[in-house]
Amino acid sequence: MSSPVTVGFDIGGTNMRAGVMTKTGDIIDATAMEVPQSLADLEQGIVTIVDRFRASYTIGAVGVAVAGFLDPECETIRFAPHLPWRDRQVRAELSAALQLPVRLEHDANAAAWGEYRFGGAQGQDNWVLFALGTGIGATLMHKGEIYRGAFGTAPEFGHIQVVSNGRQCACGKRGCLERYCSGTALEQTARELLAARSADASMLRGREFTGKDVMNAARSGDAIACAAVADVAQWLGLALSMVVDLLDPGMILIGGGMSIDHDVYLPTAVEVMSENIVGTGYRPLPIVSTAKLGGNAGMIGVADLARQLLLTPTSKE
Amino acid sequence: MSSPVTVGFDIGGTNMRAGVMTKTGDIIDATAMEVPQSLADLEQGIVTIVDRFRASYTIGAVGVAVAGFLDPECETIRFAPHLPWRDRQVRAELSAALQLPVRLEHDANAAAWGEYRFGGAQGQDNWVLFALGTGIGATLMHKGEIYRGAFGTAPEFGHIQVVSNGRQCACGKRGCLERYCSGTALEQTARELLAARSADASMLRGREFTGKDVMNAARSGDAIACAAVADVAQWLGLALSMVVDLLDPGMILIGGGMSIDHDVYLPTAVEVMSENIVGTGYRPLPIVSTAKLGGNAGMIGVADLARQLLLTPTSKE
Repeated sequence: MSSPVTVGFDIGGTNMRAGVMTKTGDIIDATAMEVPQSLADLEQGIVTIVDRFRASYTIGAVGVAVAGFLDPECETIRFAPHLPWRDRQVRAELSAALQLPVRLEHDANAAAWGEYRFGGAQGQDNWVLFALGTGIGATLMHKGEIYRGAFGTAPEFGHIQVVSNGRQCACGKRGCLERYCSGTALEQTARELLAARSADASMLRGREFTGKDVMNAARSGDAIACAAVADVAQWLGLALSMVVDLLDPGMILIGGGMSIDHDVYLPTAVEVMSENIVGTGYRPLPIVSTAKLGGNAGMIGVADLARQLLLTPTSKE
Repeated sequence: MSSPVTVGFDIGGTNMRAGVMTKTGDIIDATAMEVPQSLADLEQGIVTIVDRFRASYTIGAVGVAVAGFLDPECETIRFAPHLPWRDRQVRAELSAALQLPVRLEHDANAAAWGEYRFGGAQGQDNWVLFALGTGIGATLMHKGEIYRGAFGTAPEFGHIQVVSNGRQCACGKRGCLERYCSGTALEQTARELLAARSADASMLRGREFTGKDVMNAARSGDAIACAAVADVAQWLGLALSMVVDLLDPGMILIGGGMSIDHDVYLPTAVEVMSENIVGTGYRPLPIVSTAKLGGNAGMIGVADLARQLLLTPTSKE
């Protein structure tokens, strides 16, 4: 009998994607849709997608990766800023609705698992995925396990205060790291530089732009964009030095939407990192590289985690 | 046959202490001396103390806790700012000199192990010792093991940059957390407040004082001392919120020389901590308490770790 496939969902703030994956990590079918706003529509959307896949494949289990706080047993979504789930037993609810085993996981953890199993972190005993996008997501894997802490929320680097009375963050605090080091930070830094250097020409001036546009402008040599990228690279270097001081990993993989442009900012960030680590010169530095599975990492990771539900202790594949 | 005792050394920046410990964690003999400056004198000092104990007790193994960076196998001291060891295989050297099994450990890790086995963290699955003294030392214990990271240096909270271009730190950087949150920080903050508020009376004015003196002055209601303690309490609250965001422990024990005065600053710090954690209200807070073994924690912990060398897999006591 051929091994059943598993389905992985990656549910972000605005879009969700789903893929059908074989046991070797190959995505053989995929789909995407906007995330429905209501709880009922979101859960129904998941069921509809699985039913569509079920028409063509024998599905053994479903994995769901979400951007939010989960309990350490991955049963309950406590809080997800952009999703309608609040303190709900989402794993059991979806399992009942789908009549399939369901694995729930934090999206960054799922991506880390994907990179560990099929991507850039294969064979790493202690490593960190540091995801840069709208904000910062981070996962520590230690001895083949995702580090969860006591309540399932660690490690959360995005909201460490790095500037007293600094930029306002959506979390309610000021000066959080991800307000200086993320795609949205890049955008804000560029805006502030445009205002401060009002005499300087820039292709960004007088129009709407995103962090990605700033990155592209920097590639074209735009001075303001280059300064904005340099600032974010500096903060990323400091952030990576914190990762090293606090978690001391053997490898750091940069993931998330910003990772594709790593050539623009990562060399500077790594230099700043090594200058800011305590005991530099008396300790090895971690390998710093980029994630290999791109935007599919979460989907692949959670589909593989779902597959683990099908394995009995004597049938490890 | 009665179980042999073990000896624990705790070697700090200026003083070293050693104790003879039974398998139940009782210190039955102890001594202390200044740390010799030269490598030869330091190693000879350790041998002399063990020989003195050997005259009265059957010693099974020796543990040595040091303030410094060790490799993850605890064989080599890479770098210890106040001690003459640099990149030396100290464990093997001492074992040869003493003709006994030797266990080497980072001092904060040893103290954490002591608290886990015989002190305030017994039975805790995931917890952090946060030691406040001259600087900051921290240890994470996870599933009964000391978390070491890939290179044995984690977690190092003291030199996280919390103020851009802030106070100069001995490590060479500026704005490190321990320059705002430690016994020496308390002293410096009081000095700065005395200068800034030159018209205000204070019992600290016009004399030499330490962080401990500031603490005592605050207990007597001295306004400048109270303001200095309040500032350090605020930074400690931020530091603890970082511990929670990054490591998510079930318990935090405050240790180190400042822990004895916890009643003066810890309630404020815990309040600030809970206001600064990401997702407050959607996650349980850790228990925050104080270490129970005081200044003996490192000595007790490393003596117990040394005892583990005597246990075969079938003779667990």
